[in-house]
Amino acid sequence: MLKYLFLNDYSEGAHPNILKTLTEINLQQEVGYGEDSLSIKATELIKNKIENNTASVHFVSGGTQANLIVLASILKPYESVIAAKTSHICVHEAGAIEATGHKINEIETTDGKITVKQIREVYEEHNMEHMVIPKVVFISNATELGTVYTKKEIQEISDFCKELGLYLYLDGARIGTALASKVNDLDFSDLGKFVDVFYIGGTKNGALLGEAIVINRTDLQEKFRSHLKQRGALLAKGRVIGAQFLELFKDDLYIDLAKHANTMADKLTNGIREQGYGFLTDSPTNQIFPIIPNSIISKLEELYGFYVWVKVDEDNSAIRLVTSWATEERAVDEFLEDLKELK
Amino acid sequence: MLKYLFLNDYSEGAHPNILKTLTEINLQQEVGYGEDSLSIKATELIKNKIENNTASVHFVSGGTQANLIVLASILKPYESVIAAKTSHICVHEAGAIEATGHKINEIETTDGKITVKQIREVYEEHNMEHMVIPKVVFISNATELGTVYTKKEIQEISDFCKELGLYLYLDGARIGTALASKVNDLDFSDLGKFVDVFYIGGTKNGALLGEAIVINRTDLQEKFRSHLKQRGALLAKGRVIGAQFLELFKDDLYIDLAKHANTMADKLTNGIREQGYGFLTDSPTNQIFPIIPNSIISKLEELYGFYVWVKVDEDNSAIRLVTSWATEERAVDEFLEDLKELK
Amino acid sequence: MLKYLFLNDYSEGAHPNILKTLTEINLQQEVGYGEDSLSIKATELIKNKIENNTASVHFVSGGTQANLIVLASILKPYESVIAAKTSHICVHEAGAIEATGHKINEIETTDGKITVKQIREVYEEHNMEHMVIPKVVFISNATELGTVYTKKEIQEISDFCKELGLYLYLDGARIGTALASKVNDLDFSDLGKFVDVFYIGGTKNGALLGEAIVINRTDLQEKFRSHLKQRGALLAKGRVIGAQFLELFKDDLYIDLAKHANTMADKLTNGIREQGYGFLTDSPTNQIFPIIPNSIISKLEELYGFYVWVKVDEDNSAIRLVTSWATEERAVDEFLEDLKELK
Amino acid sequence: MLKYLFLNDYSEGAHPNILKTLTEINLQQEVGYGEDSLSIKATELIKNKIENNTASVHFVSGGTQANLIVLASILKPYESVIAAKTSHICVHEAGAIEATGHKINEIETTDGKITVKQIREVYEEHNMEHMVIPKVVFISNATELGTVYTKKEIQEISDFCKELGLYLYLDGARIGTALASKVNDLDFSDLGKFVDVFYIGGTKNGALLGEAIVINRTDLQEKFRSHLKQRGALLAKGRVIGAQFLELFKDDLYIDLAKHANTMADKLTNGIREQGYGFLTDSPTNQIFPIIPNSIISKLEELYGFYVWVKVDEDNSAIRLVTSWATEERAVDEFLEDLKELK
Repeated sequence: MLKYLFLNDYSEGAHPNILKTLTEINLQQEVGYGEDSLSIKATELIKNKIENNTASVHFVSGGTQANLIVLASILKPYESVIAAKTSHICVHEAGAIEATGHKINEIETTDGKITVKQIREVYEEHNMEHMVIPKVVFISNATELGTVYTKKEIQEISDFCKELGLYLYLDGARIGTALASKVNDLDFSDLGKFVDVFYIGGTKNGALLGEAIVINRTDLQEKFRSHLKQRGALLAKGRVIGAQFLELFKDDLYIDLAKHANTMADKLTNGIREQGYGFLTDSPTNQIFPIIPNSIISKLEELYGFYVWVKVDEDNSAIRLVTSWATEERAVDEFLEDLKELK
Repeated sequence: MLKYLFLNDYSEGAHPNILKTLTEINLQQEVGYGEDSLSIKATELIKNKIENNTASVHFVSGGTQANLIVLASILKPYESVIAAKTSHICVHEAGAIEATGHKINEIETTDGKITVKQIREVYEEHNMEHMVIPKVVFISNATELGTVYTKKEIQEISDFCKELGLYLYLDGARIGTALASKVNDLDFSDLGKFVDVFYIGGTKNGALLGEAIVINRTDLQEKFRSHLKQRGALLAKGRVIGAQFLELFKDDLYIDLAKHANTMADKLTNGIREQGYGFLTDSPTNQIFPIIPNSIISKLEELYGFYVWVKVDEDNSAIRLVTSWATEERAVDEFLEDLKELK
Repeated sequence: MLKYLFLNDYSEGAHPNILKTLTEINLQQEVGYGEDSLSIKATELIKNKIENNTASVHFVSGGTQANLIVLASILKPYESVIAAKTSHICVHEAGAIEATGHKINEIETTDGKITVKQIREVYEEHNMEHMVIPKVVFISNATELGTVYTKKEIQEISDFCKELGLYLYLDGARIGTALASKVNDLDFSDLGKFVDVFYIGGTKNGALLGEAIVINRTDLQEKFRSHLKQRGALLAKGRVIGAQFLELFKDDLYIDLAKHANTMADKLTNGIREQGYGFLTDSPTNQIFPIIPNSIISKLEELYGFYVWVKVDEDNSAIRLVTSWATEERAVDEFLEDLKELK
Repeated sequence: MLKYLFLNDYSEGAHPNILKTLTEINLQQEVGYGEDSLSIKATELIKNKIENNTASVHFVSGGTQANLIVLASILKPYESVIAAKTSHICVHEAGAIEATGHKINEIETTDGKITVKQIREVYEEHNMEHMVIPKVVFISNATELGTVYTKKEIQEISDFCKELGLYLYLDGARIGTALASKVNDLDFSDLGKFVDVFYIGGTKNGALLGEAIVINRTDLQEKFRSHLKQRGALLAKGRVIGAQFLELFKDDLYIDLAKHANTMADKLTNGIREQGYGFLTDSPTNQIFPIIPNSIISKLEELYGFYVWVKVDEDNSAIRLVTSWATEERAVDEFLEDLKELK
């Protein structure tokens, strides 16, 4: 029996307010498939938050689903998507993007982020008729390695995409902890401006399930519900997700929850650093990757749930610790104490 | 403002017990992706109920998702599925099955059911190398027209499929109201025996969302989770659906909820018949299709939510009325009174 | 050992002039992938013939390949194609269209042709968001049952498609025998005018292999070569097909070959009718479907190659006899004599 | 007007003997779709040559078509293929493999070849349920960079694949020049033994068009013709390719043609090396990659057709020169003289 799980940010259910709302509206009769009053209100809140009232918003049940439907809806058969080799679509979606018929042009990266220079190289290499044509740039924020993009970086990628006629898509499974991080200078309105399509992750930030796909470009909005239906993503009781985003966005709950996750991660980071360990990446968000001797890792695994991420050298590996809105401070303290004792 | 919706069986949220359970387990830490303790217990309950302990059970968020993943996982690229022309996969899934690459061989039907004779004809017609090879027979129970299969009918189709090496797949979005209907002679253990794969519908019988895919044949179980992941169907917080099925199946809640839906539908049927109207099909379940003069329909539409299903002749159409676990008897009574007054 | 094959219109190689041209140009160095001088000249001849100098022309190796690439290039994921249930794409392409992700809405027909009324019905039925959206109308001329469309019929379908924003696609695997038939009032320039995309069949009218896809609508021409490449249809030595169409279209060889096929079919039709037999369809082209007693069919099968097409009643079946540019008149005479003797 | 094309190995038509055969059999009536007497005889020749009489052989029109159909027929939806980043399927097939739904796991390489060590790394990395499962190893021989595998290398890869349950597929678009190269120690019987599926390239070695897919493993042979049909690859006049392979394999024409190509490439290599230039790879086959100053390249481009392959440094690039069965020795001499003069 493990003391605590730092496995991921979906080990618990939903924030209690969300369950309360779901209970309150439970017997209210609503129409189906995301056209209920809750989803409509949540849509309005999100459009206000991102300051784009021509955006369209669609709620789906998970991140892989969001990614595959958005990309399949945008790309023509011979078009591809440019992404970091570490990105979720390249590694952890069981080939979901390729299963919709599209190649991903993978970019090497050590911190999970990609640059205009790298995108340009891929774009320019694809100059022969027998090659795929890159059409979408995919970025994650926070990245799969916990890092975040600055406003300047996002803006440069956005400008470059516009110049070349590429679409910019942002996977925001962890946009909460990105925006809530100490180093962040982006806000929601930047997402309404700089990217063509993105999604706001609910599952990893306090919802039972659900992600909100936001399509800023009006020409990419056409018949999106047909894509959702065809991929099995249009929930009959659309209220289930709409109501949760309503609760997350009616005040500042979404950011508050992310802040808690980051605070807990910071505490872990500082405590681990004080014990003399280094890190794989410099993460200001809720996923951290301390490098620990293998001998200690095997003992830690008897006490806590976490992933061994990557072998660093013969004797050391980076482990991944993830915190969430629900992480208890006493568990963080206990982890740090146990780590100290194992040294 | 309408008095009441008889639009479908997903106008309300979940049965209160389900919300209660979700609330109770909310902060319990669980592993992700359907391997949590709730999903495991729900799986055991279902395997016991169908009396097949070698079955595998997987929870997904909706019926179209269940259908497309199951069929795509079973069929080789050149294989097709035989189904009634009125079935959900033929009409109301926006081409989801074809989007996975497979043809549906459609069978004409007036009551939503198909027969061994019809299946045999399709099978025998496909005798040339340039044709698709039918490999799966798809049936719904209850059907999209409210009708149900008898045990004898299912058994005959099952035997025929075994003889020809076809797989039998049952869409059980409304298996609850089928099994709870007065004319039914099937039970859950028959599903564990006569069909190769089926799903038990949660969304339309009291859950917030969720369907339980049951794979009886062990050779069709292999790597099914990879299929789920690739199609975006593996929920991070798998507990969300597992916990609901746990509640639905720990006692007889699943059948009790369906019985209420059927009772309300019966009351509607009897009341409407007493007023002298006929029906499109002889439905013993929670979807009924009374034939009503168009002039009355347009007045009814100002009071109630329902679909006009099909034009019967110049002056009359069949409408669809759907009841559910949540339908209030007073709404049924009111509907019947209003209908009488409109005559 | 059979006396002669009336199995199909591809039992022999190419018209001798074609082989002569292929031999003459054999050592000429040419660039690859259809941009050779032969393909360019053939393209010009075809554009002149159809009187549309903004059309684009692409040569592929077969009809199924042409159909699947054209339809996949036109349709968005949720869009479908309307076609006769007897059409090649519905029956004899092993599910090639569905394998590209698209549903075919099948129309019942006895003669292989479809009407504006039937198309309208399918179009109007698809009025709900959860259904596919019909976008292409597919017709064959000559049809798979040997019949042909009149100019008026094509024009009506064309007008209707324009009105509704549907694309009209014509499978011209046997456009030669259609245009060369006695009852025909269409010409090549009508194809340049009334349909959005079509293909001119080479394989069934004197070429070794090859079909010429013609895209009239300029907005459907974009990146078509990328579609061809991705589906494996861009031949390295594109000259192989270009040179053949050059030969077929530089004078009237294409129509002359089809006339011969029709003349041989007419002779068969008249001879069989004189012997008192009826026909499944009234075919003015090179596929005819006489209805013959089964007892005679089994004896005929020992002498000639042909398909038994469909059972007409307990004792009689329709057989398919196909003639081509290469059919020898003495074989037709011999067949008629043998049939007479078997009576 | 260029003096000569060294662009590729498909600038001319077919070897004259092939055209002669096609002409001789032209009016012979044959059944369609590859079951003609020519294809059957060619199949027997190939099976004898590779010494595997349980292999199945299928003729298709091009290499991209061969690759996409073979891989799509072998792989389950969640399975992937491991290949060199420089391989044809990764770069020059417009995403054809991904269009069938499958991810390619790309391996970095400088010479176009991959090793057991590299394959093992990819295989071992894919150890989580959310990742694709590598199932096929794809190699080309000769590679896209002109290099060849030794028997020992192929055997080691083959053994490793068997050990791990991976399939080994060899793209033999240029297997002729590989087997005919001075450094080669493989023969056709090794292909019948060490790889599960491969294809013998006709287009690039003297045929008008056509590749022969050879499936050694009997369990991968099932219904392969249905895959061919569905992808539009089953030619009605299958004789067109069958007859060509019959000619190529009835004596040693296939290897003789490749030898000529290699001899011409060797002469180019030696002549260029004597003039002091280096090469990108050490190619013993018909594609060579000399590194030439950009100033000279631009002058050469006015005289000859070839591709500039890759920039080597600020002032120099590697160009690709390709010879074939049809390359004239006097053109090689002329090229070398012109290069010398441009120095």
